[in-house]
Amino acid sequence: MKEDIQAKLNALTPLIAQSYKQYKHTSHLNCDNFDCENLPEHEEIIDIVLALRELLFPGYFDKQRNCVKTVDFTISEHIAYIHERLKRQIYKSFMLQNMENISKKEKITAKAQEKSYAFLKKIPNLRDILSMDVQAAYDGDPAASSTDEVIFSYPGIFAITVHRIAHELHLLGIPLIPRIMSEYAHTLTGIDIHPGAKIGKYFFIDHGTGIVIGETTVIGDFVKIYQGVTLGALSLKAGQRLKGTKRHPTLEDYVIVYAGASILGGETVIGEGVVIGSNVFITRSVTGKTNVSLKNQDLIYTDKASKRSRRNDDDNIMIDWVI
Amino acid sequence: MKEDIQAKLNALTPLIAQSYKQYKHTSHLNCDNFDCENLPEHEEIIDIVLALRELLFPGYFDKQRNCVKTVDFTISEHIAYIHERLKRQIYKSFMLQNMENISKKEKITAKAQEKSYAFLKKIPNLRDILSMDVQAAYDGDPAASSTDEVIFSYPGIFAITVHRIAHELHLLGIPLIPRIMSEYAHTLTGIDIHPGAKIGKYFFIDHGTGIVIGETTVIGDFVKIYQGVTLGALSLKAGQRLKGTKRHPTLEDYVIVYAGASILGGETVIGEGVVIGSNVFITRSVTGKTNVSLKNQDLIYTDKASKRSRRNDDDNIMIDWVI
Amino acid sequence: MKEDIQAKLNALTPLIAQSYKQYKHTSHLNCDNFDCENLPEHEEIIDIVLALRELLFPGYFDKQRNCVKTVDFTISEHIAYIHERLKRQIYKSFMLQNMENISKKEKITAKAQEKSYAFLKKIPNLRDILSMDVQAAYDGDPAASSTDEVIFSYPGIFAITVHRIAHELHLLGIPLIPRIMSEYAHTLTGIDIHPGAKIGKYFFIDHGTGIVIGETTVIGDFVKIYQGVTLGALSLKAGQRLKGTKRHPTLEDYVIVYAGASILGGETVIGEGVVIGSNVFITRSVTGKTNVSLKNQDLIYTDKASKRSRRNDDDNIMIDWVI
Repeated sequence: MKEDIQAKLNALTPLIAQSYKQYKHTSHLNCDNFDCENLPEHEEIIDIVLALRELLFPGYFDKQRNCVKTVDFTISEHIAYIHERLKRQIYKSFMLQNMENISKKEKITAKAQEKSYAFLKKIPNLRDILSMDVQAAYDGDPAASSTDEVIFSYPGIFAITVHRIAHELHLLGIPLIPRIMSEYAHTLTGIDIHPGAKIGKYFFIDHGTGIVIGETTVIGDFVKIYQGVTLGALSLKAGQRLKGTKRHPTLEDYVIVYAGASILGGETVIGEGVVIGSNVFITRSVTGKTNVSLKNQDLIYTDKASKRSRRNDDDNIMIDWVI
Repeated sequence: MKEDIQAKLNALTPLIAQSYKQYKHTSHLNCDNFDCENLPEHEEIIDIVLALRELLFPGYFDKQRNCVKTVDFTISEHIAYIHERLKRQIYKSFMLQNMENISKKEKITAKAQEKSYAFLKKIPNLRDILSMDVQAAYDGDPAASSTDEVIFSYPGIFAITVHRIAHELHLLGIPLIPRIMSEYAHTLTGIDIHPGAKIGKYFFIDHGTGIVIGETTVIGDFVKIYQGVTLGALSLKAGQRLKGTKRHPTLEDYVIVYAGASILGGETVIGEGVVIGSNVFITRSVTGKTNVSLKNQDLIYTDKASKRSRRNDDDNIMIDWVI
Repeated sequence: MKEDIQAKLNALTPLIAQSYKQYKHTSHLNCDNFDCENLPEHEEIIDIVLALRELLFPGYFDKQRNCVKTVDFTISEHIAYIHERLKRQIYKSFMLQNMENISKKEKITAKAQEKSYAFLKKIPNLRDILSMDVQAAYDGDPAASSTDEVIFSYPGIFAITVHRIAHELHLLGIPLIPRIMSEYAHTLTGIDIHPGAKIGKYFFIDHGTGIVIGETTVIGDFVKIYQGVTLGALSLKAGQRLKGTKRHPTLEDYVIVYAGASILGGETVIGEGVVIGSNVFITRSVTGKTNVSLKNQDLIYTDKASKRSRRNDDDNIMIDWVI
């Protein structure tokens, strides 16, 4: 019996190998020499994000104590650690696009190092702008009891931290890594920000689950958005043919977008100080200093005693459902 | 003082033990002999899912290099690894339903092995259909820069990968394991697909957070759905008495359902090529080749200077809220 | 070249150190002596949550076998393990508020131990009420095949387990730890419940992604809520000045709130037995035994042949979009 099952399991191997050959866009096995490299490594990229978070918010997430006396040493150590890993992952992501020409290896090694340094140079700026994001979250939420609490437990702070990192890497033209980072934040927070989106200072996301911010979105300073907001594209169903066009909206300074609202379209501009109310669906520009809200919903209040008869009323949805 | 607290802590044990006896449906302690088994193990089941993902998308998530030269060996190794673990977890999940009769052990061991093999036989098919899902995601999203990026970072691909695995195990009648797998995908992606749902080829989910697809849903080929979509049941509040009835909708081929739409009811059929617009709420069938969209919302645009007076307007919701 | 990059990397350290000094609310480095303590540790707090889950649902998540014969020993072991860790994290969270006066250390040590015990004393009650929550989930969902499945794979059970733990710690006046716990549950489930919310017995959340329950919410017994529900505050944009006021609604016994509904405002009371339909937006009280539902949406059904012309119809949103 045991040999029997082994033989049956063995017989599966050529069938699976056949599928690897048939669908090459889902098999990354084109490595025919010893120098070839794997794809960028998911776990390493997450490790880089977490090391960056330690560097950006010192003392909060460190495993060892982080003191003023030793802070210069700790910073240097973090930078060296991150640079070593980041340049390797950047190298891998560039190599992926140059599989055909292994001779470019040395040039790509140098380019990866240069890009990693170009990113690291941005860290003081990243830290400064993230400190403003933390302040915006504390100021904006009466449930926040301290900025420590904001740093420790606000998903919006984690999402914007990862976004600001991924956006810099995106601007440096590095493939794959920014999207792996942004999807890591999406996984943990439910907040899906494409690395291409441009976001200004003092940005505050509260709760955040279900937020989607598209690739060509532009957001000004002092903007607040709440859970379930979509900053999206109007569809022309053209798929890949739309690549590179501005498909997502622009929000100017001091805009507030409340929970569940959708703002769509690359030519849609939400002017300075506009407030978009909850569940509003917007596909055209709104000029500054305006509040946009839904009119009252038409609600039906049914007394439970008379409910049975109303179930047959064809004009009304029977909303009473589960899944 | 130290003994004091120890005594007080000790005094808690019988109180907790008492609660274990009182609520037996939340205490799994009915193991009175050495042969008895624990419940299926959450971590092992997740490990199986991740090993399957390596097998289904070779080269992307492997810890070691995966080359064409050694690919047959790598496939065999993965199959052996998965079979060993899967048959054990299947055994445990069947044993859970047969606690009263420990003598069935041998029969269940054989059955678990058979079911594990029956599942593994499906892997070439699973891989083929998942390659189509990857293609659908790339074709459908202008922000996708490569199929590699899709495999690495699209939550919809992870969710459908886990669903196609869980659905096969569900069809084989294996308890608990499919739901633990689907909930693992829900945790990571915000996409909640019941293992019972039937889903056709070239299925594309974008963003995905908040999607719910119920147990008796049927979905055709080339269907696309976006974040926040519910394919749910109309309630009769009957709870467990509804088990087994078709409670969730049917979507035919080429249907598109945009963000936030809800389609409810077991008799609701969305015909071939229908497009359901964003935030639409549907409880009846729609025939093929129709677009269904919301009429324009009635919106109120308030100049901020005059805002104070409008706050007292009883006919309008003051939408300007946070939580 | 290698020294070159090293010099450039070294030059970043003082710039980052400068940012640490400039933005002190995002740098936790004020530890000038050997006795000082780090902040509470995220990973330790999650470890406590998982150990508590093992204690509350014995046999489901244990790594070792958990048998009736050894159950008293296993309970004692868990209590000791949790107490050791919890008192340390509570100590750290109190110290954070007392940095200026290191001499209070002994007093805070005693207080931390007392608070940890006060929490552990609640465990039998927590377990009893969680057993009722499991029963409520099983009774309410026809897709649930057993209470084991509910415990293993219902995100609502995980969220309410963590909430009931965090709420007890919140009532004991412990800073930071309850919010770190609740955010851990939010990360895994998409369900965001503030530790301050008061929730009665037999509470059932289905699916759950996108649910937000605010700090001053009060919920009675036998209440059910579904994915995407917000129990939130009406905004006065006053931010921190609103701290401490009742900003979120009250739901009395036997209320059901279906998917996507929002109930807002601290004075809003949803009476006993009220059913709030899907996507309903409520900012005023509703008296008992009423069903509230949306009127039918005004939908536009467009034949695809004639679609092109309708795109120019200014009165209708072109809902056909993606992001």
